[in-house]
Amino acid sequence: MKSWLPIPPRSHFSLLNIPFGVISSKDKQLHRPAIAIGNHVLDLDAFTTGGGFRKVSNLPPDSLGVFSQPTLNAFAELGRPAHRAVRSYLQEVFLENTPHPEVLKDNGALKKASLILVSEISLHLPFSIGDYTDFFAGRNHAHNVGVLFRGPANALQPNYNHLPVAYHGRASSVVVSGTPLRRPWGQALPTPGATEPVFRPSARLDIELEMGMFISKRNGLGNPISVKDAEDHIFGYVLMNDWSARDMQQWEYVPLGPFNAKNFGTTISPWVVLADALEPFRTKGIENNVQVQNYLREGRPDNVLDIKLEVYLSPSEGEETIITRTSAKNLLWSWPQMVAHHSISGCNLQPGDLFGSGTISGTDPGTQGSLLEQSQGGKTPIKLNGGQERKFIQDGDTVVIRGWAGEQDGHLVGFGECTGQILPPLSL
Amino acid sequence: MKSWLPIPPRSHFSLLNIPFGVISSKDKQLHRPAIAIGNHVLDLDAFTTGGGFRKVSNLPPDSLGVFSQPTLNAFAELGRPAHRAVRSYLQEVFLENTPHPEVLKDNGALKKASLILVSEISLHLPFSIGDYTDFFAGRNHAHNVGVLFRGPANALQPNYNHLPVAYHGRASSVVVSGTPLRRPWGQALPTPGATEPVFRPSARLDIELEMGMFISKRNGLGNPISVKDAEDHIFGYVLMNDWSARDMQQWEYVPLGPFNAKNFGTTISPWVVLADALEPFRTKGIENNVQVQNYLREGRPDNVLDIKLEVYLSPSEGEETIITRTSAKNLLWSWPQMVAHHSISGCNLQPGDLFGSGTISGTDPGTQGSLLEQSQGGKTPIKLNGGQERKFIQDGDTVVIRGWAGEQDGHLVGFGECTGQILPPLSL
Repeated sequence: MKSWLPIPPRSHFSLLNIPFGVISSKDKQLHRPAIAIGNHVLDLDAFTTGGGFRKVSNLPPDSLGVFSQPTLNAFAELGRPAHRAVRSYLQEVFLENTPHPEVLKDNGALKKASLILVSEISLHLPFSIGDYTDFFAGRNHAHNVGVLFRGPANALQPNYNHLPVAYHGRASSVVVSGTPLRRPWGQALPTPGATEPVFRPSARLDIELEMGMFISKRNGLGNPISVKDAEDHIFGYVLMNDWSARDMQQWEYVPLGPFNAKNFGTTISPWVVLADALEPFRTKGIENNVQVQNYLREGRPDNVLDIKLEVYLSPSEGEETIITRTSAKNLLWSWPQMVAHHSISGCNLQPGDLFGSGTISGTDPGTQGSLLEQSQGGKTPIKLNGGQERKFIQDGDTVVIRGWAGEQDGHLVGFGECTGQILPPLSL
Repeated sequence: MKSWLPIPPRSHFSLLNIPFGVISSKDKQLHRPAIAIGNHVLDLDAFTTGGGFRKVSNLPPDSLGVFSQPTLNAFAELGRPAHRAVRSYLQEVFLENTPHPEVLKDNGALKKASLILVSEISLHLPFSIGDYTDFFAGRNHAHNVGVLFRGPANALQPNYNHLPVAYHGRASSVVVSGTPLRRPWGQALPTPGATEPVFRPSARLDIELEMGMFISKRNGLGNPISVKDAEDHIFGYVLMNDWSARDMQQWEYVPLGPFNAKNFGTTISPWVVLADALEPFRTKGIENNVQVQNYLREGRPDNVLDIKLEVYLSPSEGEETIITRTSAKNLLWSWPQMVAHHSISGCNLQPGDLFGSGTISGTDPGTQGSLLEQSQGGKTPIKLNGGQERKFIQDGDTVVIRGWAGEQDGHLVGFGECTGQILPPLSL
C-alpha cells in the first residue's frame, strides 16, 4: 500500500494504520477529530466540511456530524462497521492510485484546509472518559508483584486464573501524553514493619506499562455482552502508563484496593489505533491451565495482540535508556474476556469507557513493565546510560512508552509515544 | 418559616429544605432542574424563563443558564455562595409574607407555568456523574464486616483509623430511586473452603445504607483541597443504597477490591439537599483514638450530620418491615476529611462527582445498614412482618431508605425516599 503523500518508511502511521485522535491548532483552537498519516494529520472536521466524505459508503445517514465533535465519543458510538468503512475509505483516498483522486490528491483547496503537519498541531484526550477500569491481566506481572507483596506462596490469589481481576480506576485524572504530573503526597509506612504512617511525597514512585482500550457500542444496564459479541464493543487501543505510588499503595490497599496510589494521574497515548488495524497481529496469549467458566470461553487461541512495547527512561539531565522490551501478548486474559467479565454482572459499558490491561511484563530480565519488578522491590537498582541508577522514578525523570506492530518498512501499525515527566512535589 | 403554599406538616420538603433535582413531565419531556417544596416542585427552567429570578441578588452574571441544563452540574459548578443565594431567594419567594409577592405568590401565570404537583413529574439522575468514589467511613460497619470476613483479630485493618479508606466505584450504573435492578450473575465459591468457583445469580444479594455527597467546585489536577476549604467543594447530599453481591465480593475482592459485586447498580435518592440546609444538624461523629495527620485535622468536633435513617424491606407480596433505624452521624471520617484525603494525591474532583460514605451502622441490633451484619453473615435470619424471614434480598423485594433531619412539624429537612426493587436474574 503506497500513498501519494510522502510517508517515512519507519513511520508508525503507515497507510495500514489510520489511527484516530483529537487535535487543535494555533489558527483553530477548536478540538476536533483527526487521523494521523506519516508526518501529517488529516483534520476530519475540515475534511468533512470540504466534502471529503461525499464518496464514502456504508455509513449511517447523517452520521458525519460526529467529526465536528470535540471528542471521539460520537464516532465510537457509530459502531465497528462504521469505523471500518471510514478507515477503508480514508486508505483509498490516500492510495497512490486512489479511485477518488478528485477528493484530496488533486484537490489543492481541501489539502490546504485539512492536511496539517503533525508539528503544527496539539493533541488532546481522544475521549471524554466516563469510567476507567484497570484490569490485572498481565500474569507475569501479577506473579512478580505478588511475590514481593505477599511471598511466593500467595503470589497469585486463588481467583486469579478464574476471572480477569480488575478494579475501578479514576477517570478524571487520565491525561494525554506530554502532560507533566507532580509527585503525589500521601501516607506510607516509613519502614517495613512500622505501624504508624508518615505523610510525605511518595518515595517509591513507579510506572506501569499497559495497553488501554476504548469502548465503542454501549450495552444497557442489566444486559451482559457475550464474549463472542465483545469485539463489536471495542473501538481501539492506546499505550498507557498507570503511574503508581508503591509506598502509598502498600499502606492503603487492604481491603478495598488501590486508591490515592493510582488516582493522581494515568497517561495515555493520543492516537487510538482501531481494532481492525490490529487484526493482522493476533497471536496466542499466556496459556491458562484452568478450565474457565462458559461466559469467558472464546474458542479461538489467537486472542491477544502482538504489539512490541518499549519503555525509555530519561533523567532531567542525561541520555535516554531503554529499560523494557516486551510484547502486549503477555496477557492471561483477552480484551473480549475483559468486556464479557465486566458486563456479566449487568454493568453498563459506554462509548469512551477506558480499560487498562494491567501491567505487561515478560519473564526475562529487561522485559518487566514496572520498576518495582525490575528493582526487585527497590532492592537492586537498574543502571542507566551515563552512570545514574534507579530503583524508582526521580523528580524530573521522563518516561516514554513506544509501541508498534509489524516489521517491514511502510507497514508499521504504531501508537507513537506515551510520554510523561514527573515534577517535584508541591511544598505543602 | 411559614409558606403561602400549603406544605404538609411532616413533609420532608419544608421551607427550611429547598432540595434540588432534575424533573421531566408528560407535557415537557425535557430534563430540567427543579426544587421540591411540600407536595409540589418548582420547575426552575420555567421559573427562570418567566422572570422568576429577576429579584435574586449575589449571583454571578449570566449564570441563570444553568437552569436550562439537563443536569445540576452547571449549577453546582457556580459554587457554594451561589447555591446559598438561590436557596435563600427561593425561601423568600415562598414565605407567607414574601418580600416579592409579585414574583410568584401573586403571579398566576408563573405559578401555572412553573409550580407542578410532585405526582405529575418524573425524577431523573440529578447529575451527570463523572466519577463515583465509595468510602468506608462507617466504622461500626467496617468492624462488623471485618469480623465476619477476617475474624475479630483483623476486623479493622491497620490503616483504618489513619485514613478514610475508599475505592473507586462504577459511575455508569448509578441509578435514580425507583429504577429496578436485576439480580446479577457472577462467580462465587459454592461453599466455605471450596477452591473452584461456580457461575450463578448472586445468592447473597445485600443492601448498603449510605449517604451520598455531590462535589460542586473543581480543583485542578495536582492541587489538593485542604480540609478547611473542603466545605466549599460540597454541593449537597442524597440517600444511597450501594447494592452488593456478597458471595461475588468475597471471591473477587482480593487483592484489588470489589468490582462486579458492586458495579451492577447503586441507587440514589433524586433530591439533593444542599450542604447549607443541613448546617443546623451538625454533631459529633465516632471518636478517633488516633492522632491523624495534619492534612486531615479539622479542628471542630461537630463534623458530621445527624440525619435519621430508616430502611424498609417489602417482599413482592406482603407488608413493609422496618429493618434499620440509625443516624448518619455514625461515621469515623467527615465529608471534608474525605475530600481532603481524596485530593491530597493531586487527584482532581469535578462538579457532579459522587462520594459514598460507606455503610452506616449503629452498634445495637436493628441499627445495622446491611443484611450481612443483621443476619450475622447469613447465619441468623431476620423476621419480617407477616412471617417471612430474610438472610439476604430475595427476587421481588423492594428496599426503601428514608432519611431526614429535624423533629418539629414544618421544620423537617428530608430526602424523601431511595427505593429499589430487585428483579429475577436474566436466563443466561
